[in-house]
Amino acid sequence: MFKKVLIANRGEIALRVIRTCREMGIKTVAVYSTADKDSLHVRFADEAVCIGKPASSDSYLNITRLMAAAEITNADAVHPGYGFLAENARFAEICTEHGIKFIGPTPAMIRSMGDKITAKETMIKAGVPVIPGSDGLLESLDQARSIAHDMGYPVIIKATAGGGGKGMRVVWEDSELERAYNTAKAEALASFKNDGIYMEKFVEEPRHIEIQVAGDQYGKVCHLSERDCSIQRRHQKLVEESPSPFMTPELREKMGEAAIKAASAINYESVGTIEFLVDKHRNFYFMEMNTRIQVEHCVTEEVINYDLIKEQIKIAAGVPISGRNYIPEMHAIECRINAEDPYNDFRPSPGKITVLHQPGGHGVRVDSHIYAGYVIPPYYDSMIGKIIAVARTREEAIDTMSRALSEYVIEGVKTTIPFHQQLMRNEDFRKGNFTTKFLETFVLQ
Amino acid sequence: MFKKVLIANRGEIALRVIRTCREMGIKTVAVYSTADKDSLHVRFADEAVCIGKPASSDSYLNITRLMAAAEITNADAVHPGYGFLAENARFAEICTEHGIKFIGPTPAMIRSMGDKITAKETMIKAGVPVIPGSDGLLESLDQARSIAHDMGYPVIIKATAGGGGKGMRVVWEDSELERAYNTAKAEALASFKNDGIYMEKFVEEPRHIEIQVAGDQYGKVCHLSERDCSIQRRHQKLVEESPSPFMTPELREKMGEAAIKAASAINYESVGTIEFLVDKHRNFYFMEMNTRIQVEHCVTEEVINYDLIKEQIKIAAGVPISGRNYIPEMHAIECRINAEDPYNDFRPSPGKITVLHQPGGHGVRVDSHIYAGYVIPPYYDSMIGKIIAVARTREEAIDTMSRALSEYVIEGVKTTIPFHQQLMRNEDFRKGNFTTKFLETFVLQ
Repeated sequence: MFKKVLIANRGEIALRVIRTCREMGIKTVAVYSTADKDSLHVRFADEAVCIGKPASSDSYLNITRLMAAAEITNADAVHPGYGFLAENARFAEICTEHGIKFIGPTPAMIRSMGDKITAKETMIKAGVPVIPGSDGLLESLDQARSIAHDMGYPVIIKATAGGGGKGMRVVWEDSELERAYNTAKAEALASFKNDGIYMEKFVEEPRHIEIQVAGDQYGKVCHLSERDCSIQRRHQKLVEESPSPFMTPELREKMGEAAIKAASAINYESVGTIEFLVDKHRNFYFMEMNTRIQVEHCVTEEVINYDLIKEQIKIAAGVPISGRNYIPEMHAIECRINAEDPYNDFRPSPGKITVLHQPGGHGVRVDSHIYAGYVIPPYYDSMIGKIIAVARTREEAIDTMSRALSEYVIEGVKTTIPFHQQLMRNEDFRKGNFTTKFLETFVLQ
Repeated sequence: MFKKVLIANRGEIALRVIRTCREMGIKTVAVYSTADKDSLHVRFADEAVCIGKPASSDSYLNITRLMAAAEITNADAVHPGYGFLAENARFAEICTEHGIKFIGPTPAMIRSMGDKITAKETMIKAGVPVIPGSDGLLESLDQARSIAHDMGYPVIIKATAGGGGKGMRVVWEDSELERAYNTAKAEALASFKNDGIYMEKFVEEPRHIEIQVAGDQYGKVCHLSERDCSIQRRHQKLVEESPSPFMTPELREKMGEAAIKAASAINYESVGTIEFLVDKHRNFYFMEMNTRIQVEHCVTEEVINYDLIKEQIKIAAGVPISGRNYIPEMHAIECRINAEDPYNDFRPSPGKITVLHQPGGHGVRVDSHIYAGYVIPPYYDSMIGKIIAVARTREEAIDTMSRALSEYVIEGVKTTIPFHQQLMRNEDFRKGNFTTKFLETFVLQ
């Protein structure tokens, strides 16, 4: 096992990794920018090294300084957390070149999933469903019709130079195709001076459902079931849960199998996530693979009762996994607490936390690096913590979350707590009736 | 279901009950003495009523004032918590007379277990093992020998007027009996001017292991496995865990069966606990039954994934239980955090909490009513919170607890945190080698 792990990150994920390392008897090295000198991850690590100025390029993204910190502290492994350099293949490579274990997959695995076109090709080859489409510009109406027939309606026509819905048409049946084709082409030309259009399968009432996977150095791959992350605002996840209220045992088996195929296609080692879009008919399509731990890993931890960071570290150290798939035994929901003003378009609200009281009790987990008196710096991500509520049923987990949110006192900055409180009361949310479009029409009161 | 529950208690258990009520959509009424006006249970309840001066007899034990508070707030049920009036049959009776549901067993059930002699007789009749003995004073050496032969060696001879080990002799075999009988009698006479002596089976290397039970209003009783509470200081529990490291599946089945017999013997309804002493040969003996929720209920909640306060409230409201027994799926340990100075004979250390930072993360639950700025009053129990660590294995749960204790910052008062930190590192504790005598020889460093 590793003797000393340097955590190339900050905030709650740095603290998260320190906690598990401490439980495993592994020493930790925190790195920090000058803006983070009073951070909890600095206080709780065994050693801490200042690596530069607040700008990420001067600190958390500065590979030279990170490697220097690892060398002077004699760390034998680096945990990248999420964000920053977590999916930077070059960083993983440099770690390896310096004889320091990168806790994550190999550079080649990171690269193969980092390039979206290669990733999609790999998935097609492995038999993992991807969103079908015209694979390039449409050359004629006849070609469009032939592709639409192949993949089935509904389809969506998009302008290659497009944006803002211009040159975009959803086509539900054959009789609508010609008109849609012509108007999209005309609109594209008028709007972008480029009439190039292409076609994709239209994903109806899409849900973002991802499968957690784990693979070891000996070729074993398993899945740890799904997380539903459909509650997003401008592609930023705000609430995640496991199991998905939309899931069925059959769909889980199919998606789990596809996720294992996806990970096995690149001989994946470490924990990782295959993100899928799922339509209302429960067809699912590969979006991308995250070759790192995710913010929302905690909901999986709570429903299968495993520490995923511990698993990740053990895999990196060469420990084999059992290879067994895990099905949720409980229901867990995570709310991201961001220092943002939900009443003002979620504008970031950095500053000093004057009063803090965190929730506790049965079924409540808090992962947060804040404390009373802590100053949230304006330079980084605005997430200041996560609450995870866990119970036997989804309804009870929501009730526990509501209760926990009602106890959470954070003064001095604005937070997303009022947003989550209203969401937990929302009838559609409580019934599990939501798609990735849900927040587009959600009005905060 | 109840509409409004008055909680006739304070501190962490009042907060515990409020949390579950909130999750169940039940309104809550807090009561408080003038010493507790700034308590969290007062802040978090929907309503709060001041019931008198700090002395318990003027407030938390004052039935008249509690009933008045329940009547003016129109509460339809009372939760007694633990301690104070939780096992006061008269209080339960008065609640019932006022048409207010007492969340717990009936007055008759409380009484039958409150009187220790009646309780023991009930258990013998139900076939639950109790510590065998002479059932009165020994009249002769021959009688002593005959009783010793009946129950088997070792036995212990005790002075009826005794204390401090005087007139007490453990007898391991027949050849030692005559001498022990005579010296105990002589020592008793010399020490207490009363040579009355009696005999009991000597419980070798005793462990305190208790079985959580639940019974409903329709005669169904089940057990929820054991808690090991052997880590005690002067009969005060400090650490509890489930499962017991001393448990075997066979012993659990036998003890569970005995606990169900015990509860069934009085048609028990509500959650409750049967406390046993277990000797090194895994013989077990009934000590007493607690007809209420216990401080240490949380470890059971974490290993079987049920909210016991919710179960208790549902049973009181007439909801039937499944009747299924539950076996631990995880391992949980609880450390009681007391405002006491472990370096000064655990002397209470009331006062103002100046700085507070509570632990969090995977596998850590905190149940506590304290906050930064809170003044711990000197009038009540010194317990200010509990940490519960839960993991797949006992070893991991201990490591998680160690990590959580290392994060817990409480300034302004002394606490038992350093004691727990040392205990978690202790080799015998880690191996599960301990009895109720363990702390007698434990030296805090």
